[in-house]
Formats: sequence, C-alpha cells, structure tokens
Amino acid sequence: MKRKEFVVIGLGRFGGSICRELTNLGMSVLAIDKKEEVVNDYSEIVTEAVVADTTDESVLKNLGIRNFDHVIVAIGDDIQSSILTTLILKEIGVKKVTAKALNEHHEKVLKKIGADQIVHPERDMGRRLAHNLVSSNVLDYLELSDKHSLVEIAVNQSFAGKTIIELDVRARYGLNIVAIRRNHDMIVSPQASEVILEGDILVVIGSNQDITRFERKMLQEED
Amino acid sequence: MKRKEFVVIGLGRFGGSICRELTNLGMSVLAIDKKEEVVNDYSEIVTEAVVADTTDESVLKNLGIRNFDHVIVAIGDDIQSSILTTLILKEIGVKKVTAKALNEHHEKVLKKIGADQIVHPERDMGRRLAHNLVSSNVLDYLELSDKHSLVEIAVNQSFAGKTIIELDVRARYGLNIVAIRRNHDMIVSPQASEVILEGDILVVIGSNQDITRFERKMLQEED
Ligand SMILES: Nc1ncnc2c1ncn2[C@@H]1O[C@H](COP(=O)(O)OP(=O)(O)OP(=O)(O)O)[C@@H](O)[C@H]1O
Ligand SMILES: Nc1ncnc2c1ncn2[C@@H]1O[C@H](COP(=O)(O)OP(=O)(O)OP(=O)(O)O)[C@@H](O)[C@H]1O
Ligand SMILES: [Ca+2]
Ligand SMILES: [Ca+2]
Ligand SMILES: [Ca+2]
Ligand SMILES: [Ca+2]
Repeated sequence: MKRKEFVVIGLGRFGGSICRELTNLGMSVLAIDKKEEVVNDYSEIVTEAVVADTTDESVLKNLGIRNFDHVIVAIGDDIQSSILTTLILKEIGVKKVTAKALNEHHEKVLKKIGADQIVHPERDMGRRLAHNLVSSNVLDYLELSDKHSLVEIAVNQSFAGKTIIELDVRARYGLNIVAIRRNHDMIVSPQASEVILEGDILVVIGSNQDITRFERKMLQEED
Repeated sequence: MKRKEFVVIGLGRFGGSICRELTNLGMSVLAIDKKEEVVNDYSEIVTEAVVADTTDESVLKNLGIRNFDHVIVAIGDDIQSSILTTLILKEIGVKKVTAKALNEHHEKVLKKIGADQIVHPERDMGRRLAHNLVSSNVLDYLELSDKHSLVEIAVNQSFAGKTIIELDVRARYGLNIVAIRRNHDMIVSPQASEVILEGDILVVIGSNQDITRFERKMLQEED
C-alpha cells in the first residue's frame, strides 16, 4: 500500500486538525504556513513542516508540490492569499485541490479557478449546532445529503418502555431508527421488537423535511 | 409552543451560520458583535441585532441577557474576550452557555468558569475532512460518539451486483449498512436481500476501530 501524500497550507485550527488526523490515519503530510511559530508547533507531528508564503509560485515549484496527491488550502481570513494560492496550485498542475471558503462569493471564485472541492467548516458546524440547540432532546444533527439528515434524539418519557414497532416513527414521521445508543454501547439496526429504555439515544435517518417536522413536534412536547 | 430565545455573540462565519439556521428553525435570535458593519449584515435576518462589547458587564445586564434561554459565545480568535464574556454570562445567571474553544487549554478554562457546552468547530470538521480525503471511496465521516462513527462509502466494482448478505460486512468488519444512497433516493434500513448497484453510496455505522480497519482495507484495494 502506497502512503498517500498530502500538503496542508495554513495551519489554523482547521488546517492543524487536518494535519493531526491525516497523520493518525498513517498518511504523509507536508505542512506549510507563512508564520514560523505556527510551523514549529507541527514539525514534530507531520512528515515535514515548512515556513513559506504560498502566494509565491517559485516557492511552490521548489517544494515539488505538483508531485503530491492532494493539496488542502486551509487559509482562512486572508481571502486574497487563498485565491492566489489555489490559482497557482491548479496552474502548476496539482491534480486535487480542496479549498476552504469564507462565504458563497469566495466559493464561486474558487470553483472558477479550478478548485476540486470546496469546504465551509464554520458554516456547516454552525448549522449542525443550531439543530442541536433548538431542542434539548436533539443531541446531534448531520446532513447526509441535500435531502437527507441524521439526528440523535434523547428518549423522552413518552417513548420509554415502548418497542420500536409501537413507536412506529416510520409510518408517523417517515423516519427510521437505524441505531440505539445505550450507555457506551451502540445497538445498530435494532429489531422491531427492541424495547426503548429511558436514557437511550435514538439515531434516526430521514428526509430533511420529515426531520424538521419531527424536531418541531418534539419541541412542542417539551413545553 | 413558546419560541425559544437565543443570543449569539460574535458574528464570524460560525456565529453567523448559527444565527441563520436558528432563524430558519423558527427561533428568536438576538445577535451581538462589537463591529457595526458585521451587525448590519444580520439586522434583516435575526429578531434583533445589536452592536456591543460583551466584555462589559453593564452592557449584558442592560440587554436583559439573563432572561434568554441559551447564549452562544462564538467569539473566535480573541481568547480573552471569549473567556471574560463567558465568565460574566454565568455570573449574571444565564442558565445555558455554549462556547467555542480555540484549543484544549481554552476548553479547560471555559469549563472551569462554568460553560455548559464547549464546541470545537474547526477541529471537528478538520477530522471529518481528513477521513474523507484519505480514500476516494470514503465520502464522509461523522463521529457519533467517542467509540462509534458513521461513514459514507462509494461502492467499488467488487461490491456492485452483490446483495448485502453476500457482502457480509457485519461478520467481516463488524460494520452495519444502515442506508443506501442511490441517485437522489435514500433506502433506509435496507433488506439483507437488497442488491448493491454501481454508483450506490453505503451509509455504514460501526466502532471507530472497525471503521478505521475498513478504511485501511479499502485504501489497499485502491492501489
Ligand atoms: N499566503 C500564505 N501562505 C502561507 N500561509 C498563510 C498564508 N496566508 C495565511 N496563511 C496562514 O493560514 C493560517 C490560517 O488562517 P487564519 O488563522 O487567519 O484563518 P482562520 O479562518 O481563523 O483559521 P481557523 O478557523 O482554521 O483557525 C494562518 O496560520 C496563516 O498564517
Ligand atoms: N468582546 C467582544 N464583543 C463582541 N463581539 C466580539 C468581541 N470580541 C470579538 N468579537 C467578534 O467575534 C467575531 C468572531 O471572531 P473572529 O472572526 O475573530 O474569529 P474566527 O474564529 O475567525 O471566527 P469564524 O471562524 O467563526 O469566522 C468577530 O466578528 C468579532 O468582532
Ligand atoms: Ca475559523
Ligand atoms: Ca440539543
Ligand atoms: Ca480568524
Ligand atoms: Ca473521500
């Protein structure tokens, strides 16, 4: 198995976390930032850490960037640097570039200049947290696609003691219970005869529409 | 149904996204930032938008902050402001405070001064993206708990044409296929006799250990 080789540019919280996790997964990582003190924090963690301003084309060429499998541009607030860096990377022929966008406008520009994948970490986590906050029963919320999401729901008293078939959330809300988190265990694909206990957390998948309807319903019951 | 009332302090990308989504979910939102131009961007979106420095206790008291259900401190780079704001909020008796942390040290301090929930949006999204990047078959990765995760896996040729029972990922890897994403549809809790097609995306739940083992296995097959 060939270790994939990654480059992470911009070692803020997002870029730094990518470096750590790629390393945990056994990947080779070249980490780049223009600030020396930031680079020093990663020199012991990643395969190689380099101080460089990536808006300088010759710098990127000298590092042999085009030979890497995938480059992640995790530059945050400096939108100019993010765009210029992405442009140069695609010009020198890097095959896969993932770039972080600040907003929709930034995303459009990044797409036009050839970024292969655009991510919005703060926006996506903000959405996720909002769903978590509206109901004390909804513990987590994850978008699986444009149309489908997954929610984790703490069981309230009206659920406890009933079997999955008795609750019948599929017919009533179009939702499916795909797992039950019970203490530190996870009962995946539970039987229809499984009895829900107090303290259980239901892992549910459904359309965004059905999930929002269900969240609103639970909210009403909380009052 | 009483609309829950939220306060979001710090209208960067994270805080801004929370404001938008809470509003979409029908919640009342008071948005606060010390920069006027940022506040203006949200005045049309949220219930109320106010320019204020939240490190000033009298400002928070005059806004009647303690009467709100939940305050989110989404101040980012300015760690001092984040800590001082959280401290004042808990001192004046706000029941629920969720605060964004920059790093583990910041998290510890926030916990000590009474923050009820700490979030690390960039760190969590960095981890999620890293898993997505290592394999071209792994499309998304979500931590469900300390021990369990969900992955979305693009079907490779060796899977297509087989039924779920033939693949037997449960016995072989300890994983469960909880849904199949096919074009724009989602087949939730598929039957064991369901035939996997090329282009399908499998939504799989398992222990972190089993998932990492499966990701590594898929990586080997890609070479
Ligand atoms: N031209 C450049 N070359 C190399 N590194 C750069 C360049 N421009 C910015 N960076 C680096 O990108 C890193 C991340 O940017 P910054 O902290 O401003 O954004 P952020 O969105 O707040 O990040 P995060 O949310 O991930 O913490 C910084 O460490 C910065 O030094
Ligand atoms: N004391 C304060 N009172 C009110 N608002 C504040 C205070 N300190 C900082 N803020 C605001 O918090 C907002 C978010 O902070 P900043 O953009 O520095 O962090 P960030 O981590 O890069 O944000 P994000 O990642 O969400 O974009 C800014 O708009 C800033 O004006
Ligand atoms: Ca950020
Ligand atoms: Ca919740
Ligand atoms: Ca910042
Ligand atoms: Ca992938």
